[in-house]
Amino acid sequence: MSAGLIGLDWGSTHLRAYLYGADGHALESRALPHGIRQLPAGGFPEAFSSAVRDWPALPVLACGMVGSRNGWQEVPYLDTPTGVERLAQHLTRIAAPDGHALYLVPGLHDTHRPDVMRGEETQIAGVLAREPATTRLLLPGTHSKWVRLRDGIVTDFATVMTGELYGLLRQHSILGAALPEARDDADAFRRGVAAARGSGPAGALSLLFSARALMLDGVLDPAAVPDYLSGLLIGEELRMALAAGWADADDAIPMVGEGPLCDRYRRAADTFGLRLARAPDGTTADGLWRIAAAAGLVPAPATITS
Amino acid sequence: MSAGLIGLDWGSTHLRAYLYGADGHALESRALPHGIRQLPAGGFPEAFSSAVRDWPALPVLACGMVGSRNGWQEVPYLDTPTGVERLAQHLTRIAAPDGHALYLVPGLHDTHRPDVMRGEETQIAGVLAREPATTRLLLPGTHSKWVRLRDGIVTDFATVMTGELYGLLRQHSILGAALPEARDDADAFRRGVAAARGSGPAGALSLLFSARALMLDGVLDPAAVPDYLSGLLIGEELRMALAAGWADADDAIPMVGEGPLCDRYRRAADTFGLRLARAPDGTTADGLWRIAAAAGLVPAPATITS
Repeated sequence: MSAGLIGLDWGSTHLRAYLYGADGHALESRALPHGIRQLPAGGFPEAFSSAVRDWPALPVLACGMVGSRNGWQEVPYLDTPTGVERLAQHLTRIAAPDGHALYLVPGLHDTHRPDVMRGEETQIAGVLAREPATTRLLLPGTHSKWVRLRDGIVTDFATVMTGELYGLLRQHSILGAALPEARDDADAFRRGVAAARGSGPAGALSLLFSARALMLDGVLDPAAVPDYLSGLLIGEELRMALAAGWADADDAIPMVGEGPLCDRYRRAADTFGLRLARAPDGTTADGLWRIAAAAGLVPAPATITS
Repeated sequence: MSAGLIGLDWGSTHLRAYLYGADGHALESRALPHGIRQLPAGGFPEAFSSAVRDWPALPVLACGMVGSRNGWQEVPYLDTPTGVERLAQHLTRIAAPDGHALYLVPGLHDTHRPDVMRGEETQIAGVLAREPATTRLLLPGTHSKWVRLRDGIVTDFATVMTGELYGLLRQHSILGAALPEARDDADAFRRGVAAARGSGPAGALSLLFSARALMLDGVLDPAAVPDYLSGLLIGEELRMALAAGWADADDAIPMVGEGPLCDRYRRAADTFGLRLARAPDGTTADGLWRIAAAAGLVPAPATITS
């Protein structure tokens, strides 16, 4: 057993590498542009070598789309309910350059809807490393994930394509076409959130066109349309989460994501009387270490306390 | 007062021209590719001249995006409630080539949501010309419209961007990317409709990602993903319409649109226990004549009986 680890957070558009010390804290990290859709000429092996160059010959644990059908090697999803221990028992080991042992973390599959995640299971493990009693979790983003847990086990989850829908409407739809450069407009965002909240069981999908009508009315400045749409879509996600029981007003739900995006969700949640609180940074790095520890690749306490 | 009329159905991507006889039936029609986004070098006047070439110097009535901000001349929307008589009182006359008198039909603005339509008000007038007692109406399409009427007056309406969302997801999203050529799959369509119906108050927006999960599961053939998405989105539109009171299971709702699309809506409606029945073709041509009659541009009975 070695005294350290290399972790790779390897998604569609990014590759981040972490060199851990024996205590589970990242000593060094690197960001490379070699997501699995943007590989260098030498493909996965070359991207891998760039990521770990000059680092010791430690075991390497990787999560994310690198284990998908279009990745280095497909690692089957594990059905829910699944926790960290079960993830650790199903790592796939593949041959990697420079004598490294490379292990891939499987994604999760929820048979209820059905739904899938790949990469987020490791972020969840990172949250659990600090807060083992977590029962709800939100990971906002291109494909937002709402997660329910029991005793550290993911029981079910739902993906909402809020970020991708926003991008589609902004770049390709009649609502976003020919707009001037967007400017931040907190009032327009709030108006969109409120419209989604007021849509009731009908939902806010039928309100998208109001972005155009409000602009034609002169109520919404064209430069504020993107923030109105952002509010409408994030509001619709929260409306759905409350209607489907992914969230309720009694609990504060931890949130893992980029700061400005989490801030938008937090502001929208205020309108719904819902409490979302951003979890500490570094969940993917923490989760890789946590899973490596459960797999016996490194010695580590089960909970990160710092 | 002349004994006939020329009607123009002038949208973003199409221009259709009708030459009517004195009895309100189209003697001849033409389809030109000169929607307002695809004008010839000579702009609106040249497109107009092409559309009416060799026809008598009759008054011309035009509806659709030709009266929008990006059209030949902007014609302000009329607020609901508005019926045919009020539309006819607010035609805008503009100078047109070749000695023609050209009148533009205003669109409608619903202050409730807010919402707008331009072109559909004339289709509605066409439906009313045959069925004056119509109280509900669905115009499915890129921007579907659900309409409520009282005594032939449009009281309110809602736009659902179902067709545009389908196109965005199909062409630009992760769900539609890299799919093989689509094939018709009635089972996949039905599965999508059923999923939307089963989504309850949460709505089907949170189920979009299931298209990907079902494909990864091998349940959905990649070539059937478009029909699943079509079912999911049309089903969501119907779920919304029922939740918001635009439709209920007691009435048969007439539907104005293209045959294959109306057939999809009819099949989806069966799953919801909702009755949608396609109205006769030619509603725009009928509506232009009906509005022209109300404006005194032509003599005509209020109801088309054939």
